[in-house]
Amino acid sequence: MPVFPADQLVQIGTRLFESAGAPADIALLVATSLVDANLAGHDSHGVVRIPQYLGQIASGELKPAERPQIVRDRGTAVLVDGCWGFGQVAARFATELAIQRAREHHLAAVSVGRCNHIGRLGEWSELAAASDVACLVTSCYGSGPYAAAPHGGAKRVLSTNPLSFAAPVDDGRVLVDFATTVVAEGKIRVARAKGEQLPPGAIIDAAGRPTTNPEDYYAGGMLLPFAGHKGFGLAVMVELLSVAIGGADELDPQRAYGSLFLCLDTGAFRASAGYRRYAEQFRERITSAPPAQGFSEVLLPGEPEQRARRQRCQEGIPVPEATWEAIQQAARERGVRLE
Amino acid sequence: MPVFPADQLVQIGTRLFESAGAPADIALLVATSLVDANLAGHDSHGVVRIPQYLGQIASGELKPAERPQIVRDRGTAVLVDGCWGFGQVAARFATELAIQRAREHHLAAVSVGRCNHIGRLGEWSELAAASDVACLVTSCYGSGPYAAAPHGGAKRVLSTNPLSFAAPVDDGRVLVDFATTVVAEGKIRVARAKGEQLPPGAIIDAAGRPTTNPEDYYAGGMLLPFAGHKGFGLAVMVELLSVAIGGADELDPQRAYGSLFLCLDTGAFRASAGYRRYAEQFRERITSAPPAQGFSEVLLPGEPEQRARRQRCQEGIPVPEATWEAIQQAARERGVRLE
Repeated sequence: MPVFPADQLVQIGTRLFESAGAPADIALLVATSLVDANLAGHDSHGVVRIPQYLGQIASGELKPAERPQIVRDRGTAVLVDGCWGFGQVAARFATELAIQRAREHHLAAVSVGRCNHIGRLGEWSELAAASDVACLVTSCYGSGPYAAAPHGGAKRVLSTNPLSFAAPVDDGRVLVDFATTVVAEGKIRVARAKGEQLPPGAIIDAAGRPTTNPEDYYAGGMLLPFAGHKGFGLAVMVELLSVAIGGADELDPQRAYGSLFLCLDTGAFRASAGYRRYAEQFRERITSAPPAQGFSEVLLPGEPEQRARRQRCQEGIPVPEATWEAIQQAARERGVRLE
Repeated sequence: MPVFPADQLVQIGTRLFESAGAPADIALLVATSLVDANLAGHDSHGVVRIPQYLGQIASGELKPAERPQIVRDRGTAVLVDGCWGFGQVAARFATELAIQRAREHHLAAVSVGRCNHIGRLGEWSELAAASDVACLVTSCYGSGPYAAAPHGGAKRVLSTNPLSFAAPVDDGRVLVDFATTVVAEGKIRVARAKGEQLPPGAIIDAAGRPTTNPEDYYAGGMLLPFAGHKGFGLAVMVELLSVAIGGADELDPQRAYGSLFLCLDTGAFRASAGYRRYAEQFRERITSAPPAQGFSEVLLPGEPEQRARRQRCQEGIPVPEATWEAIQQAARERGVRLE
């Protein structure tokens, strides 16, 4: 598997997005965001998306030069039109706006509609946490494509409805970032390619029966919410926040893709120093626990990502052959030189 | 098992709390809140708590005549001192304040410290949903008693850190309401009393080994977060919101019991009618799914509670013998007649 330093992948992505019509700053922002997902260890949201985004640009679904616009500004609540540009551009705009408004008003929320894939949700909640602001991000394709069944049901009626939360702790942060399904579709594709079975409880087949065979998913099966009614409840919460309240369907009923960025200043109720003191003691309390059977240590949420980042900053980012080939192919088609 | 109409249990609770020093309105509010948990089917938060609360009053931990006070009012963010009165009194005060502030400012959060057990979290999020406001409630005993291990750890370092979310849907609401552990301690007590085993994955023993024996919990074992790192991540989020940001430890470092009530107006980003339309279509989409194997229908989060309520309003509330005896015993000690 070829291994690249992060900045080389950023350059490659930037050049490709520029060749497809993105202004230099936007191309750099999106490429940096994708490579950041690789650095965090989440390759499903990394440079593997470059060919996908280029395809969406070619089909007109993604308008690479568009920039987000404020539709309605109520101070603590702002509705933003992503204008079908890159989701990352809208997400960064929304996060920075929510941070600024939370500083002014203690808490604030920015909703984004007409918005393509915003990448790794944790990037945006972490951005807020780095500014001493806690942040909840939710995202949902309210009008489909649906991939997940409700708890107890046998029909695709939900997207994977991810959520992320981050808050500062010491000089780092805790980071929660997951889909409300047991697995995302990408994992099923990988299992199918390798001829492996899925863990029990991840999917059901088209008739609503438990299965571990990835083929059953592509034959009309569906993803299951994690932890039964609990994950399902969170999926419902994510859709109501991201779209029903956020209002993405008002901007485009056919493609009701919505994301909500809710920021809460860590100094909202008291001096930030009090927050920091408590959070530090909290970290010490949690990580003081000896490991349980089968574990070697206790990690705070977000520590696996921080470790992946340290390692990959030093050792580079491994890119699977198929991904690297797809990127090279895209470059050839556009006459872009990657060296 | 004796069965009581709801209003009879409310009367009994009210009389007992009054006999212990609660003013009439507070006694009625708390008794109604506990019986409401029974009606919703959550007996662990129902009248079984009456003897417990009376014991806390006797020990001085709970001050039955105290009313909450605003400590710091920043408009969108308000810090409330529960004054160690009944948690339900503080929770209702906080929820109503958060609803009112969310209507004024689109979103708002109220934090409560020095606060006893607030009962069923869903009561407060539902109260907001009934006023067209979405609501997230989190609660945490930041200074212990701890009952749960972190993911991968073998030490009690977390409380059960519950969260609840509700939002209006049609003439009802969706309701998410759960602990971030697989089970609460009450379930383990019941299993032990019945001589039954726990489901796998609910607890580990004192040495951090998986077990299904409820005795192991009482021999130094601990609750596990649900769904591994996902439930653990939510538990961390709940503690950071409820206490670290909320600031309960500032009001009392020894008993840092904090709850956060975050309200978001369904009309924050657009007209409420748009929200209602989307939410209704959403409900139809979800409940249109045929049942999966082993299920007879698909229920929205909160529907089990609504059904329990309809049934128990008609048929009465069954109260286990042991609970009824404890209530009678408390009445005898206080010279209160229950007829």
